[in-house]
Amino acid sequence: MPTFTSLDVTDVRFPTSQSLDGSDAMNKDPDYSAAYLELTTSEGETGTSLVFTIGRGNDVQSEAIRALSHHVLGRGVDEVLADIGAAGAAMIADSQLRWLGPEKGVMQMAIGAVVNALWDLRCMREGRPLWRVLADLTPEQLVDLVDFRYLEDALTRAEALEILEAARPGRDRRIAELEAEGYPAYTTTPGWLGYSDEKLERLLREARDAGFDMVKLKVGADLEDDLRRFAITRRVLGEDFLVATDANQRWGVEDAVAAVGALSAARPYWIEEPTSPDDVLAHAEIRRRIAPVRVATGEHVHNRIMFKQLLQAGAVDVVQIDATRVGGIHENLAILLLAAKFGVPVCPHAGGVGLCEMVQHLAMLDFVAITGTMEDRRIEYVDHLHEHFVEPVRIQGGRYLAPQQPGIGARMLPASIQSHRFPDGPVWKELAS
Amino acid sequence: MPTFTSLDVTDVRFPTSQSLDGSDAMNKDPDYSAAYLELTTSEGETGTSLVFTIGRGNDVQSEAIRALSHHVLGRGVDEVLADIGAAGAAMIADSQLRWLGPEKGVMQMAIGAVVNALWDLRCMREGRPLWRVLADLTPEQLVDLVDFRYLEDALTRAEALEILEAARPGRDRRIAELEAEGYPAYTTTPGWLGYSDEKLERLLREARDAGFDMVKLKVGADLEDDLRRFAITRRVLGEDFLVATDANQRWGVEDAVAAVGALSAARPYWIEEPTSPDDVLAHAEIRRRIAPVRVATGEHVHNRIMFKQLLQAGAVDVVQIDATRVGGIHENLAILLLAAKFGVPVCPHAGGVGLCEMVQHLAMLDFVAITGTMEDRRIEYVDHLHEHFVEPVRIQGGRYLAPQQPGIGARMLPASIQSHRFPDGPVWKELAS
Repeated sequence: MPTFTSLDVTDVRFPTSQSLDGSDAMNKDPDYSAAYLELTTSEGETGTSLVFTIGRGNDVQSEAIRALSHHVLGRGVDEVLADIGAAGAAMIADSQLRWLGPEKGVMQMAIGAVVNALWDLRCMREGRPLWRVLADLTPEQLVDLVDFRYLEDALTRAEALEILEAARPGRDRRIAELEAEGYPAYTTTPGWLGYSDEKLERLLREARDAGFDMVKLKVGADLEDDLRRFAITRRVLGEDFLVATDANQRWGVEDAVAAVGALSAARPYWIEEPTSPDDVLAHAEIRRRIAPVRVATGEHVHNRIMFKQLLQAGAVDVVQIDATRVGGIHENLAILLLAAKFGVPVCPHAGGVGLCEMVQHLAMLDFVAITGTMEDRRIEYVDHLHEHFVEPVRIQGGRYLAPQQPGIGARMLPASIQSHRFPDGPVWKELAS
Repeated sequence: MPTFTSLDVTDVRFPTSQSLDGSDAMNKDPDYSAAYLELTTSEGETGTSLVFTIGRGNDVQSEAIRALSHHVLGRGVDEVLADIGAAGAAMIADSQLRWLGPEKGVMQMAIGAVVNALWDLRCMREGRPLWRVLADLTPEQLVDLVDFRYLEDALTRAEALEILEAARPGRDRRIAELEAEGYPAYTTTPGWLGYSDEKLERLLREARDAGFDMVKLKVGADLEDDLRRFAITRRVLGEDFLVATDANQRWGVEDAVAAVGALSAARPYWIEEPTSPDDVLAHAEIRRRIAPVRVATGEHVHNRIMFKQLLQAGAVDVVQIDATRVGGIHENLAILLLAAKFGVPVCPHAGGVGLCEMVQHLAMLDFVAITGTMEDRRIEYVDHLHEHFVEPVRIQGGRYLAPQQPGIGARMLPASIQSHRFPDGPVWKELAS
């Protein structure tokens, strides 16, 4: 009987702050990073996942993942993989570790990393990509993965089952559609605050020419800059192109209403993270006052309980799940089900390190097995750092092509890990010297 | 000019799980622990604080505090202490670390530890306890410490100033009253789930005989047990004694309403943490449905933005601040001001390791400089582990006597730190063998 023999976490960082890729109103100089997890079994199999961070603190995140070792090391692989739901629940309920959250911050992301690595191993054994493995589970098997504690005032197990049962017809047709045509994307590549107007204009043209029908601009640092960059965007892309905006938590309620009002002549499609991701009531008030501009949030929303409230309070038009923010695939499944119950579309956050590669599986699961539609739904896309992955995302005509290789999408190339290991990999040694 | 020369964190753990001290419905076997921080200056001065945890993960918490080293090491002590508000704001705004929260979990507690250690050093220099140092700040100096970002829809700087100005008259009288009579306490010592009925009964008698007029029982693991223990409590203490209950996040909305209903004949004074600390809307609904039983929460509420919403939504009757959960004294000051604005009493959470010693300063600040009243206000008290502190809390007649020694109350005895260092201190070596 194979057992889990090691849990290794590597601190991998990319010096993206050198080029201002990823710069926004609150995150000025990110070094896109990954706390990279490899579970190994006594048979030499591996399960891999990662948590995305933006530099400093990637060591703390790595340590948090290591703190979960006792939940897997020495345990039987077959037994754990047969009920990954139970393994996830046991980590959430760890009676000492839960004090550090509960269910938030680095510990919740660490739990997500372990849950996801278990799924990666299961997918490797089945030789299929995650979205296909999940889509083939029965509605009962899917709801068994969900922790309904604290959810039942908004979504019961029976209601979740009903949603999944209703999506059974047409499943095979939708799988074929994904295989043939992929899933819609939008791009944030042009919109970082640190880019010059010339670079913005060039990247906007490239986005349109590549087939995208939506871009996103970072805003919120300086209104005059925002208006100028938005004007460039409208001039290049025309009046009908969808242009979302993202304030990265910059404002309080009044500032958000005023700023979106000032931008509204340029018709932003949505405003993302207008205020603190913790502030359900503020999002609800902002949404009431800036309609018809949509409100989007989620990349920093730390668990299903917060998403539940955002939906209950009518605070969001768009739910943005993130592949590595919450307690893994199970919690994202709960969030997809909540969004389906409330009829709010999910447009996943991506970019970073491996987030595109990982989150596409969840959007595709949503289409195949939960909502059955791609309407008003797009996965974020940013075109850097994909070359470090074993199976980089493939974008064609502004759409994500369905991943084909087994796993959850988190596997990086050994050479990339080696060269970007912090602080002793060659890339960092050279920068230090 | 003195500079900060070292930031040392020690992983200190007490094997409390051996005696089931601290056992509740969600935390069955805590080893009360502290990530213990000492800042040292080039003159040999020290500033000390800690983050309380319950065992596993204390290493992660320690690592998170170390991740903030670059915010103090090498900086001028005088300059930093002259504006601790700015130092705290800079840590919150750290453009890479904030990805790990923002403002929640181990990173927020780590920021709180550094902020609090800076205050400890400042108090040492002034030779006075924290509550006196803070009470002598002007209203302007106090509000300058508060980060109003995300608060202004509920509390503006001008409103906070008004609250503090209104509390100026009578300040000296209240200081004298605290010095003479202390601050009311309640005790949780009898109520842990792991104790036998005989131990419960003995500890209840001891609590009453020591002058307490309120105790708290842990509930939520098993209704029959809860009813039996509540009956014992009423038999020993009579019908008029205040008996609070604490479910430690055990329930969803319907379960909470049903459970409090079943307990209601025994007249619980409040129900604490009936559900997830993240669930503002659930607390609001539970409160509407279980009145007149009060709803209390806060020990796991991770920042001022969550407290703001609990107050805005009418979700709580009692705000329970914790000395080491949020981003330090500044954030607790914001929470005290919010509670004052909404007219909700603050009854601090305490117990653990050093929480009583630290949080009493904030309750006393509330009395002297913010609300000017002790009505419906009591600080939690649990009588273990105080002997490890340089200035243990002094309880007399069911009241906290005002601390006298300089500092924030977090200083532990060197011998206690040494013997409980994890995993290599003698206490842990002996347990391992």
